[in-house]
Amino acid sequence: MLEQPSKKTELGTLGEFGLIKHLTEGFAPVHPSTIVGVGDDAAVIRPAENHDILVSTDMLLEGVHFDLAYVPLKHLGYKAAIVNFSDIYAMNGKPQQLTVGLACSNRFPVEALEQIYEGIAMACKAYDVDLVGGDTASSRTGLVLSLTILGTVEKDKAVKRSGAQVGDLLVVSGDLGGAYVGLQLLEREKSVFLEHPGAQPDLEGNDYILERQLKPEARQDIIEYLAESGIQPTSMIDVSDGLSSEILHLCGNSQVGCTLYEEKIPIDPTTYNMAREFGLDPTVCALSGGEDYELLFTMKQDDYEKLKNSALLTVIGHMTDASQGAVMIDKSGGQHEIKAQGWSAFEAE
Amino acid sequence: MLEQPSKKTELGTLGEFGLIKHLTEGFAPVHPSTIVGVGDDAAVIRPAENHDILVSTDMLLEGVHFDLAYVPLKHLGYKAAIVNFSDIYAMNGKPQQLTVGLACSNRFPVEALEQIYEGIAMACKAYDVDLVGGDTASSRTGLVLSLTILGTVEKDKAVKRSGAQVGDLLVVSGDLGGAYVGLQLLEREKSVFLEHPGAQPDLEGNDYILERQLKPEARQDIIEYLAESGIQPTSMIDVSDGLSSEILHLCGNSQVGCTLYEEKIPIDPTTYNMAREFGLDPTVCALSGGEDYELLFTMKQDDYEKLKNSALLTVIGHMTDASQGAVMIDKSGGQHEIKAQGWSAFEAE
Repeated sequence: MLEQPSKKTELGTLGEFGLIKHLTEGFAPVHPSTIVGVGDDAAVIRPAENHDILVSTDMLLEGVHFDLAYVPLKHLGYKAAIVNFSDIYAMNGKPQQLTVGLACSNRFPVEALEQIYEGIAMACKAYDVDLVGGDTASSRTGLVLSLTILGTVEKDKAVKRSGAQVGDLLVVSGDLGGAYVGLQLLEREKSVFLEHPGAQPDLEGNDYILERQLKPEARQDIIEYLAESGIQPTSMIDVSDGLSSEILHLCGNSQVGCTLYEEKIPIDPTTYNMAREFGLDPTVCALSGGEDYELLFTMKQDDYEKLKNSALLTVIGHMTDASQGAVMIDKSGGQHEIKAQGWSAFEAE
Repeated sequence: MLEQPSKKTELGTLGEFGLIKHLTEGFAPVHPSTIVGVGDDAAVIRPAENHDILVSTDMLLEGVHFDLAYVPLKHLGYKAAIVNFSDIYAMNGKPQQLTVGLACSNRFPVEALEQIYEGIAMACKAYDVDLVGGDTASSRTGLVLSLTILGTVEKDKAVKRSGAQVGDLLVVSGDLGGAYVGLQLLEREKSVFLEHPGAQPDLEGNDYILERQLKPEARQDIIEYLAESGIQPTSMIDVSDGLSSEILHLCGNSQVGCTLYEEKIPIDPTTYNMAREFGLDPTVCALSGGEDYELLFTMKQDDYEKLKNSALLTVIGHMTDASQGAVMIDKSGGQHEIKAQGWSAFEAE
């Protein structure tokens, strides 16, 4: 279905050290905080004065988190990096250093790994991040990526999930549900292809939702906007598992309730229409789809004036007393308990 | 062959978030530098004044790096952590914060993962390290562990692989080859067991080499000794792939040569005798075996007085001009080029 690398160099020809060296050359550190990058027992990072260090880790496994039938390798590398960067923005920080662990079997030629690293390099360049370390290993079966991101945040400015208070506004960036609907589209075209190998995928006019799934971005711009506007969120999380799941994390960690208004949830028209085509409720796609990598945060009502003209942000609800629970008011005024139906790692099989 | 957990709780019953929470509860941060630990988008770490941050990452895959037929899960967790800590000591630093990525299939019950985390907890306690984050994922086949360790080192005191100079002494801690011979013993007993399932493993009297393989330690004591003795190594690396491979890394990164004396290589009598029993050359086990997690470093000749009474350290050679290459002088005075024959990730299959 996808173009495969035409040249195929067997992995064994480079050896483990040769392979790491080959894949990471060209990743020259740009941050003054990166004192030693790839190639030693550990990277050395010099923290800026009055700054804290943030660290987050994510694993991506073939057949679980991605399907190489329709995910180009370069996109996979890009997305793996973005997913990690997003965790740092969700703490109100800036990603700076990345390590990459990669395991795969011999069925992957060197050129395939090069494409993954190209994607990672693109993301590092776009978000001003240094690749400072990694590990490659042999896997008996599928491809495994394990990334760890280090970031920096001004001392005491990190935003946790636990700071939301009763009366705070609930705000989300961008729009939701697109990545999930994009995935449905890719799955459909894969099924068509498996039945009719000659068929060309019918993806036209759906660039937006495909990009949301295959080449998501992390919301650096939101963090910059909040800093410029003088808004310090009281709690924050990124939307990786779906709006419901993330709201419940904020409520649980902050020990508050939440009222969410269905009509306020931002959904792009492409997402909306394609969801309908699949017979899916667009709201459910936003609530349970995940992988949007938007930022969901709470802020003081007093700060409302500071964001009311932003096209990037939408107020979708407010925080209530814990006793009221987390509820959604639907378009007809009905009230529904918010339940986590996000992707769960161990239920798929 | 090994005792399996008797109670078996299916992974799916806890869900991804429940599982992480379950596995990481009880890991209370001890370092004042750990501001936010497990449970948010990222951990928050406050660097000590005038200290740099070190970061290193390692992957361990079932069937490649370990065989669950003879590696108890608790030992696996312990070793996975130790291997990472060792990378930080090899930079002259102190490990402080650990993140753990774990992927496995549903064939592992919750209790199996608990045992892995128990081992990680033991190592964290013994080495004064906080578990600050992690990720669990579903794997289609084997168990995958991906650990990232953060450490700290006084500003400008990190020891790289690249600082060795002509005339420097080459020093190694402890003894070598034990982990490799221990592995041979375990492999032999596994073969016996597969042929005669009723047989009891014959491991008596070999505690030392089995422990070198199954429950290695990282050389925190050496780093403390060097600091107390006022020795600043000029270059350093830990022995994970075998003495040959590590010497070549120091030579390559420092652009020097090396003369190693076979008779000086420290080998424990248990290692020596068991190697002979297997028809292996004990020196080759030390040169190519790996997994000893000893520290190999270079230092100024002027510092020799400071270590000459240490039972922990052995001078095994000295650094020469790059044009002389890396050579070993054998017990009969013969000269051999040092070649890397350490474990190579992609040659096994």
